[in-house]
Amino acid sequence: MMTPFPRSELATPALVIDLPAFERNMAAMARWARRKGIALRPHAKTHKSGEIARRQIAAGAAGVCCAKLGEAEALAGEGIRDILITSPIVPVQAIERLARLNRKMERLAVVADHPLNVDRLAAMMNGQELDVLVDVDTGSHRTGVTSADAAVALARRIAAADGLRFGGVQFYCGPLQHVASLAERSAALAERTAYLSDILEQLRGAGLPAEIVSGGGTGSFAVDAELGILNELQPGSYLFMDRQYIECEYVGPKFEPALSIHTRVISANTAGRVTVDVGLKAMATEAGTPQVLAGADPASSYKFMGDEHGMLVTPEGAGDPGLDQLVTLLTPHCDPTVNLYDRYAVCQNDQVIAYWPVTARGRSS
Amino acid sequence: MMTPFPRSELATPALVIDLPAFERNMAAMARWARRKGIALRPHAKTHKSGEIARRQIAAGAAGVCCAKLGEAEALAGEGIRDILITSPIVPVQAIERLARLNRKMERLAVVADHPLNVDRLAAMMNGQELDVLVDVDTGSHRTGVTSADAAVALARRIAAADGLRFGGVQFYCGPLQHVASLAERSAALAERTAYLSDILEQLRGAGLPAEIVSGGGTGSFAVDAELGILNELQPGSYLFMDRQYIECEYVGPKFEPALSIHTRVISANTAGRVTVDVGLKAMATEAGTPQVLAGADPASSYKFMGDEHGMLVTPEGAGDPGLDQLVTLLTPHCDPTVNLYDRYAVCQNDQVIAYWPVTARGRSS
Repeated sequence: MMTPFPRSELATPALVIDLPAFERNMAAMARWARRKGIALRPHAKTHKSGEIARRQIAAGAAGVCCAKLGEAEALAGEGIRDILITSPIVPVQAIERLARLNRKMERLAVVADHPLNVDRLAAMMNGQELDVLVDVDTGSHRTGVTSADAAVALARRIAAADGLRFGGVQFYCGPLQHVASLAERSAALAERTAYLSDILEQLRGAGLPAEIVSGGGTGSFAVDAELGILNELQPGSYLFMDRQYIECEYVGPKFEPALSIHTRVISANTAGRVTVDVGLKAMATEAGTPQVLAGADPASSYKFMGDEHGMLVTPEGAGDPGLDQLVTLLTPHCDPTVNLYDRYAVCQNDQVIAYWPVTARGRSS
Repeated sequence: MMTPFPRSELATPALVIDLPAFERNMAAMARWARRKGIALRPHAKTHKSGEIARRQIAAGAAGVCCAKLGEAEALAGEGIRDILITSPIVPVQAIERLARLNRKMERLAVVADHPLNVDRLAAMMNGQELDVLVDVDTGSHRTGVTSADAAVALARRIAAADGLRFGGVQFYCGPLQHVASLAERSAALAERTAYLSDILEQLRGAGLPAEIVSGGGTGSFAVDAELGILNELQPGSYLFMDRQYIECEYVGPKFEPALSIHTRVISANTAGRVTVDVGLKAMATEAGTPQVLAGADPASSYKFMGDEHGMLVTPEGAGDPGLDQLVTLLTPHCDPTVNLYDRYAVCQNDQVIAYWPVTARGRSS
């Protein structure tokens, strides 16, 4: 146990979890899933933390999802024993690692979208049991088979392969998660889910009913539950929330911002603007700019100024924060921002009470 | 020493140094600086590596620059003993760390742009000798004093403070580094350097001649040397080069791409496009997209597809790379991309011969 110290003494930039808000978010989702009778397998690509995965499972999650093999290895090293890897594992060297990982697990599942991949998995798992889900392209052409016929053929190939078990279907509508209008998002999800239903119907017709139908994210899970086809949900960002998700309209449980970046003013020589010590090495840039939560006028705008700095432009008449002022920012996109830090500073009542390592930071391979 | 293995067996995505190209870049810059009689203090924010900093110093560099205190601490831990920290160190807790770091160093220098900062440094260094450079705003309003009068007043304050030594001036024209046209870049640098000359003249007039005049980057160093005012250069990216810098026009030594990302095709179900296993958690996105160096048609375009994936769209008739194909990419912007990885895979003759840790990865605070 570390000795708590005031949040104001954190070295900046720092990635900060507001523990009470985090716990409320985690509990709200767990309670909601229990009431709906739907399995929750939160995506650990958001937090990459053994500590957080253990807490999610203790709160009722079936296990976690990992985006990559390295992420799964890191969380397995922290005692997590039930993982679905949500991207295909294709290279021979990676499948060797997958076989080693599988020996440690209570349950490991992967997705596949190509016969060559299934054949390699079958050849290299040496008769170990491995669950393989058919990944179905939702239309974004990222990964997945592109037709019901291909889904049935791949499921058949999995079921026929020694050691592999056809575990079901993955259908993750990534690009729909951030559609701001709930009505538009719901309509698009309904249309995509009809397509998925047809595939599931054809699988049943072929004698290959999908046991797990996994998908959903923070922007879609409540709508997905109403549509009633997915039976396992994989949201991640609900734990932390970020500017992108805060800007969306919701049904279902309410989540609050529980993750922020703490930064400080390190230069204040020009009226109307100050420079803070967080730039693009400590905040993901691809989803726009952060929102000021505290320490400066909330209408201030942030502008990236290179690797290590950002500019806060204060609104006319608002007054600038002074040199050394602590400013807290809501991240534009939590997942890739978390991936920049080695640890979370966990805060309660303005005290830092723990550091939690970002166990799987950088484990993209 | 590790046993070399073929580059084709790397777990992907991987950050790869082409060692012969890297050594040619390092030697070309060292030779050029020697001939010009100008001091070279490469910026370690590009590579964040103790191994690379030691090699640069062995090749003749005066020391290195670091962007942040944590970066300097990490490199000092690897034996680097002469460092200029190029951002102001303002918070009390950080200045305490700076004082501890200074005791280990042969020479440590920092920049300052505010009287409050100088007063804190003076109060907290406990009579240790510390070089302080006056940081001058080049017009980008990132950091620095904004007038010759403010520069003279701050230099006077430093010189008068117990334990602090007025070390000179920093003048880094960040936004000019990537102006593609050499003529435009040179003209803007000449105009900015005239402003700097006036400040240096006023400092001399006040009896405070600047010993070190530090600045310059990969896009400007050769022009800066011709202008003859800077006497210490701080380029970083020349070692690796990236898509942004490759697209610029140059005078001075020629550098070649020495850093790439190795990625693999993990999904190939749609004609004209494939999905590779590198997304925005393993490549900085703020400078656009990468260029294909090998493994796919060089005219293929890359599109970010979330945290862990990218799409390669192949030109009409070029043919798609197959599932599991290794593809190498030139990073859009090397510095923040390096900061995503824990290590470099160092290659020679298509063999991985070493891993070099990215010692100061994530050390933004």
